[in-house]
Amino acid sequence: MSNFKYLLEPRSIAIVGVSEETGRPGTQALRALRANGFAGKIYPVNPKYEHFDDLTCYPSVEAIGADVDLVIIGVPAKAVLPVMEGCATKKVKYALILSGGFRESGEEGIERERRLLEIARGAGIRLVGPNCLGFANIHAGVYAAFGSITREPKLARGGVSLVTQSGGFGYSIALACAEEGIGFRHVIATGNESDIDTVDFIESLVDDDQTQCIVAYIEGTRDGRRLLAAGRRALAAGKPVLLWKGGVTEEGARAAESHTASMTGTYDFYRALYKQSGIVEITELHEIVDYLKLLQSGKRLQEPGIAVMGVSGGSAIVFADAGARQGLKLCDLSAQTQERLAPVVPSIGAIHNPIDLTAGYFAEGNQDKLEIALRAVIEDRAVGGICVNIATTGASGSLVAAKVLTRVARDYDKPVVVFSSTPKSINGEARQVFADGGVPVFPSPSRAANALGVLLRLDRIKRSQTAVAGERGTPAAIKVGDVFSEMESKAILSEAGVPVTRDVLLPAGQMPDLKGFKFPAVAKIVSRDIPHKSEVGGVKLNLRTEGEVRTAIDEVLSNAARLAPGAKIDGVLVSEMVGGGFELIAGSVNDEVFGPVVMVGAGGIYAEILKDVSYRLAPFDESTAMEMLDELRCRPIFDGARGGAILDVSAAARALVALSEFVWANRETVQEVDVNPLFLAKDGVVAADALVVSRKPDGHGA
Amino acid sequence: MSNFKYLLEPRSIAIVGVSEETGRPGTQALRALRANGFAGKIYPVNPKYEHFDDLTCYPSVEAIGADVDLVIIGVPAKAVLPVMEGCATKKVKYALILSGGFRESGEEGIERERRLLEIARGAGIRLVGPNCLGFANIHAGVYAAFGSITREPKLARGGVSLVTQSGGFGYSIALACAEEGIGFRHVIATGNESDIDTVDFIESLVDDDQTQCIVAYIEGTRDGRRLLAAGRRALAAGKPVLLWKGGVTEEGARAAESHTASMTGTYDFYRALYKQSGIVEITELHEIVDYLKLLQSGKRLQEPGIAVMGVSGGSAIVFADAGARQGLKLCDLSAQTQERLAPVVPSIGAIHNPIDLTAGYFAEGNQDKLEIALRAVIEDRAVGGICVNIATTGASGSLVAAKVLTRVARDYDKPVVVFSSTPKSINGEARQVFADGGVPVFPSPSRAANALGVLLRLDRIKRSQTAVAGERGTPAAIKVGDVFSEMESKAILSEAGVPVTRDVLLPAGQMPDLKGFKFPAVAKIVSRDIPHKSEVGGVKLNLRTEGEVRTAIDEVLSNAARLAPGAKIDGVLVSEMVGGGFELIAGSVNDEVFGPVVMVGAGGIYAEILKDVSYRLAPFDESTAMEMLDELRCRPIFDGARGGAILDVSAAARALVALSEFVWANRETVQEVDVNPLFLAKDGVVAADALVVSRKPDGHGA
Repeated sequence: MSNFKYLLEPRSIAIVGVSEETGRPGTQALRALRANGFAGKIYPVNPKYEHFDDLTCYPSVEAIGADVDLVIIGVPAKAVLPVMEGCATKKVKYALILSGGFRESGEEGIERERRLLEIARGAGIRLVGPNCLGFANIHAGVYAAFGSITREPKLARGGVSLVTQSGGFGYSIALACAEEGIGFRHVIATGNESDIDTVDFIESLVDDDQTQCIVAYIEGTRDGRRLLAAGRRALAAGKPVLLWKGGVTEEGARAAESHTASMTGTYDFYRALYKQSGIVEITELHEIVDYLKLLQSGKRLQEPGIAVMGVSGGSAIVFADAGARQGLKLCDLSAQTQERLAPVVPSIGAIHNPIDLTAGYFAEGNQDKLEIALRAVIEDRAVGGICVNIATTGASGSLVAAKVLTRVARDYDKPVVVFSSTPKSINGEARQVFADGGVPVFPSPSRAANALGVLLRLDRIKRSQTAVAGERGTPAAIKVGDVFSEMESKAILSEAGVPVTRDVLLPAGQMPDLKGFKFPAVAKIVSRDIPHKSEVGGVKLNLRTEGEVRTAIDEVLSNAARLAPGAKIDGVLVSEMVGGGFELIAGSVNDEVFGPVVMVGAGGIYAEILKDVSYRLAPFDESTAMEMLDELRCRPIFDGARGGAILDVSAAARALVALSEFVWANRETVQEVDVNPLFLAKDGVVAADALVVSRKPDGHGA
Repeated sequence: MSNFKYLLEPRSIAIVGVSEETGRPGTQALRALRANGFAGKIYPVNPKYEHFDDLTCYPSVEAIGADVDLVIIGVPAKAVLPVMEGCATKKVKYALILSGGFRESGEEGIERERRLLEIARGAGIRLVGPNCLGFANIHAGVYAAFGSITREPKLARGGVSLVTQSGGFGYSIALACAEEGIGFRHVIATGNESDIDTVDFIESLVDDDQTQCIVAYIEGTRDGRRLLAAGRRALAAGKPVLLWKGGVTEEGARAAESHTASMTGTYDFYRALYKQSGIVEITELHEIVDYLKLLQSGKRLQEPGIAVMGVSGGSAIVFADAGARQGLKLCDLSAQTQERLAPVVPSIGAIHNPIDLTAGYFAEGNQDKLEIALRAVIEDRAVGGICVNIATTGASGSLVAAKVLTRVARDYDKPVVVFSSTPKSINGEARQVFADGGVPVFPSPSRAANALGVLLRLDRIKRSQTAVAGERGTPAAIKVGDVFSEMESKAILSEAGVPVTRDVLLPAGQMPDLKGFKFPAVAKIVSRDIPHKSEVGGVKLNLRTEGEVRTAIDEVLSNAARLAPGAKIDGVLVSEMVGGGFELIAGSVNDEVFGPVVMVGAGGIYAEILKDVSYRLAPFDESTAMEMLDELRCRPIFDGARGGAILDVSAAARALVALSEFVWANRETVQEVDVNPLFLAKDGVVAADALVVSRKPDGHGA
């Protein structure tokens, strides 16, 4: 992990590719650095000029007679490698390559990018780009960038840092935030990420004192594990990460292929990662603006109960609808709170939640009443936060509300948010008071609810993170390239702590030792030549005694001999038979980007057709496993829905934990695990069949 | 249906409740009417004054010596009824009651509202309100309103009419639209809707030449059928209806109870209604703004293929992700289109979809190339519409794009939309050119995609509406209060065209006549005292011959006699047994608000726990029934997923159509139908069990 100090705040910058032609990236960067008051040295590089603007211009990077922290390269792709050789000779610390014509542009570009990285690695130079807009350190005036980042409007200073793979779209995020008064620390476009990637920057921004929130747009990541770790570290540091992942649908991924060639990865795994790290998923521009407004207030939402008060009943309903989808509740107010409200709320209003202050309440003369009402509500123990709907209230009423709300809000840790639909041109003064007082104003009650929902989830995930599983489980004696039968697989999983049914495979003619066997049992013919065992009388169920098992073995063998005379018989499999319960499936895949990911789902067609499945990155603890099971749509069945038995959910959770620890401990050797079916019963859970697949010798899976 | 001509454009208005006290609703209305240039007569009414402002003031409505089209009543609730008596005497056409203190405020208010309506009905007066903000006819300057409607900013004239139950929240919709330059025809707050309701207004607005789009916020409706009809009529008239329904969650419905006391209704039924009428569901404020921007362009999206072009690859990915969720595709461009593009797109760009025009393309000097590129793309047959991402392009580039795009867009019926994130303060001139040229600009690519998705759905629904089922089916001989057994129910449904299995109920000791019976059959003991038939050997499956049936009857009777000796035996039921296929359920409920609604779902736990169900209002045609089946998550099973047989989906659709026609034709007498299970097989569909429940004599259901 690096703090990228001399990248993001360099003492000296060389710019290769300045030119009198208008619009060249290098020229734009040079002028942006100077226009924004960059305090360090600037060395333009172009052998054609002795001076550029009013600066000494150098024929090459090597010719600069002083240390260079950062070289900005804006020459055409074909000229980049020689420049990098010069940087290597000069031993610069960082290079920022604005130029396109690399990995994103076919075979030749891929090879060029490979060489670029090779030179950089050889010389210990860290790279940003290629094919990117550059970055700006807004606090220090370091505009190492071209294009929209360097143009109007100038971003204000603030606590948000933005990292984006796509310069064009990513900067739209900054513009949308800027329109709502949000200020920035760093804005970084990473382009092809040949060396330093988004996750590197997130990691470093967690340690940046001036960064309060991190926003990222990515199209893929090489290492989901580092993203998970960075997200968790950010959460622990109280610096929320908002992440927009482009290319999550098939259509989007196809469009991404023609863009910076990033691995788009599996959306299911990203979503698991969000839940396990507290990274906030973003799918729309204004969500970022809304969430930042609230997150910057620094408040925590520790209870799902929200009190809604204001002058618009419809707004309260809209808040409640959106809030319900976020796990928020319009909580009941205590009798004491209602007693405090009664004298200050008009009698035609309502002192229960939602609190109807009645039209025109936000007005001069009502300040004291409003303050009493707000304090009464915010001090109610069931209330985690307040949404005040001033709705269409005009300029003077908005100002009254702003003054009182900001005064009250600063005395409490609970979030106070506002819905106002009055145009800024009319209640701008009130909006400024709200902004200065850290009370976010949303343009709809539903968007206020969505932002509060994020705060609630972050609080819950943060609390659960104290219990995140460490690296547990011990590696099994599995080697790359091993092949396991189903029986062997079950033995391995059983050893790892996943309960399995007992099987005995008997060569033809041999009789079983059924000591310790749990009846009833099932006997099945085993032959690759008999795909449908039942059709040849090759399966006998419900065998209650050792005698019945013996008879059944004889029967399936003779049935097979009669009805499938040509089949080569491997023997008879005698297994404990699981009755009742609910059929789950579980499994794991060792993903190239995310490492071992564990899945659980409802069995049979539920998982395959209805996709009633849930994922988490291994390893994880029992509470996470419980969350996975809670996410299944079939979940009510475990609690006895439809008059069924109450099933042993915590046994299933423990089995998932054991599986997660097994696949994590064996991540170098195990590619895939399938447990199907995993029977969930009243008194435990048991895998009736399973397969462990080792990694292939080439390092990848089956 | 009324056009409410002398309500929305009255020739004369009396205002009861003008007062020198500031802020009284009547006074606000009077001053708003005059300030906005209302051209008709205004009669203030208050016995205390001879003049109000500079107008003659009347002691009562009756004292006005001329015809009065509309009386606006803003006196306290207790004084409203006497004023209404005066209106009745005066024979006014319409009354608008701004005052609260009616149905929303408890017992006394409910009685007051009942009396209010009684007086109005008796005198033929149509009512708006009570408990509402009033309305404004923006074109004619009729501001019969108080509060936010009468305040700044003044709405511009335009083609959007807004009807809202909640004045406070509803007017937020108008404000959000106004900020984006959308103009209005009528803005109407309906409040308690004691007489004229939202649906009445929607109906009348469909016939209003000046209204192009209708936006409504409701918390409930008394008659879903009228809403359905109004939506269909609006769709046919090319006037889209955007509807925000508040109170769709349990939390929201609870909050709504304390607001205007509307029936919140079942969200599932509303969603069915949206699909069947083309009413566009709204759940967020900016959706309204976005959809109106595009709808006002008057373009139709007839193909799901969208060409995305611009200067930001990330934006194309974000568009593709959102578009995929809307059923849009980034279509392949023809070879001919790509040939036309090649000379006008830089070689480092891309001429496949998404088309990468490369950074800086929107610039003076590129106009001709851009125009060629746009025409090439829009003329491609696979392209239904275009999204141009100008993203962060600055002022001059935006203006170039605006001029070319608007010039090209006007030559084609296909929608052309734009994503720009450049602040209005910078590219305002370009935005004006876009607005004047009918090319909508969205603040994110995803919001552009969502708006195009609405256009696509509207086009599809509009096309399918040509085939909407009329009133078919004939009433069965069912009377209110009838009680049917399962066998009788099946006979009724069979008659209606729903295939059923044949059953024969035999009194104990009697042998069946199985002529025409399809084997295999099943025999079941019938006794109210034996809830679990299998446990007493009371069920025999898979009976292949008449002889086997006879033996089975003897067996189940003797088993029951032995294992349930006290049970009173009604007889033995012999039924055709359905094997294989997939278990569906179907049914209908005769909803108080929506009338007969038909449901189909996957059987067993799928429907109950996984809620894999779909609804439509009866009656409907086969294509609608197919849509219902297509919506089921288990749908892939019908096509042979998991190696199963291909099932006869159209037979299921026909059965649903028959059911829908039956429940519609018998809506006066049938309350509920349950068909469970409905087996869907390779060669048809058959109901194995069913229950028809008639309405109870009190007019309501069981």
